[in-house]
Amino acid sequence: MPLAPWRSPLARALHRNRALVYARYLQLATVRSDGRPANRTVVFRGFWGETNQLQFVTDARSEKAAQIESSIAGELCWYFPKTREQFRIAGTLTLVRHSSSDLNLLQARQSAWQALSEGARSQFTWPDPGKPRATQAEFELSPPATDIPLPQFCLLLLDPNWVDHLELRGEPQNRWQYQRQDGNWSMQPVNP
Amino acid sequence: MPLAPWRSPLARALHRNRALVYARYLQLATVRSDGRPANRTVVFRGFWGETNQLQFVTDARSEKAAQIESSIAGELCWYFPKTREQFRIAGTLTLVRHSSSDLNLLQARQSAWQALSEGARSQFTWPDPGKPRATQAEFELSPPATDIPLPQFCLLLLDPNWVDHLELRGEPQNRWQYQRQDGNWSMQPVNP
Repeated sequence: MPLAPWRSPLARALHRNRALVYARYLQLATVRSDGRPANRTVVFRGFWGETNQLQFVTDARSEKAAQIESSIAGELCWYFPKTREQFRIAGTLTLVRHSSSDLNLLQARQSAWQALSEGARSQFTWPDPGKPRATQAEFELSPPATDIPLPQFCLLLLDPNWVDHLELRGEPQNRWQYQRQDGNWSMQPVNP
Repeated sequence: MPLAPWRSPLARALHRNRALVYARYLQLATVRSDGRPANRTVVFRGFWGETNQLQFVTDARSEKAAQIESSIAGELCWYFPKTREQFRIAGTLTLVRHSSSDLNLLQARQSAWQALSEGARSQFTWPDPGKPRATQAEFELSPPATDIPLPQFCLLLLDPNWVDHLELRGEPQNRWQYQRQDGNWSMQPVNP
């Protein structure tokens, strides 16, 4: 699969902002089962292999896992502070659970687990996220195995079909929209 | 109206991150008319008077204005890089257009216009946002009057009913949820 045309400006932004650890933090919007939006910070975990799909990790017990089951549409908003530019990336979400029957996806899930730090893996042993606060002891289980993901560990993929790139620098600002149709990407400069 | 209990930790985060201009940038999720989420960076413009409503500005010609007409639910995601904490703020949106019949809201809209920099006000003279790129000359109109907002200028208010505050610092992390019911706020420590 060829790289989508927005991959090059996004790679440049990632490179130029690489000194900021939070340049890999971005916001994922989903829709709740009652139709209201939800929005939270997620950590970019790279692209899945040779595809244009962005990788994240999440917990099967989190609200967003349930939201994605009922509505697969997602939109990312990614602001890069140093270069003052924003990427909005809309697409469809795939939640890869331990029960997935797709061997390629299961392999990607395992690789994502192994790529996590021990601290990040340990968070999946914590008590149910969003539930009333548990005791300190319940947060102090031993770190999980490196090779086999815990059942609640999920890989989350976003397959983009629309990207909006805004550069705040520039007078006036620059903005481009990328659209995927029948597998092909087109690009249009638009007004900021 | 008394300050909501999440106002104090939010004020502290704003203060501790005040050296970063982008600590006032946050992400607003809304829902499109087809049910998919939308997500973009907005600039926090303070609270409206003595209320707990957050103020933003937007252009009546933008997509988000149309989205808010069809669905008033919004969720903000606000990440503070220096103190490594996140506020998720869900509530209902009010778009204050020039045609509003509420005199208090019209006054707030006028104050928001006057508080903008000349550069920010000038952006409202630019050609239709999101439309195919106009010529350079179309971006070079003279700056609008300071005292009377352009018709396309809108004040946007978010009236919160749910706030989720996560501190990444801490082992384990700290997280609190605030909920408004019948006008009263309650608070619950929850698992991160």
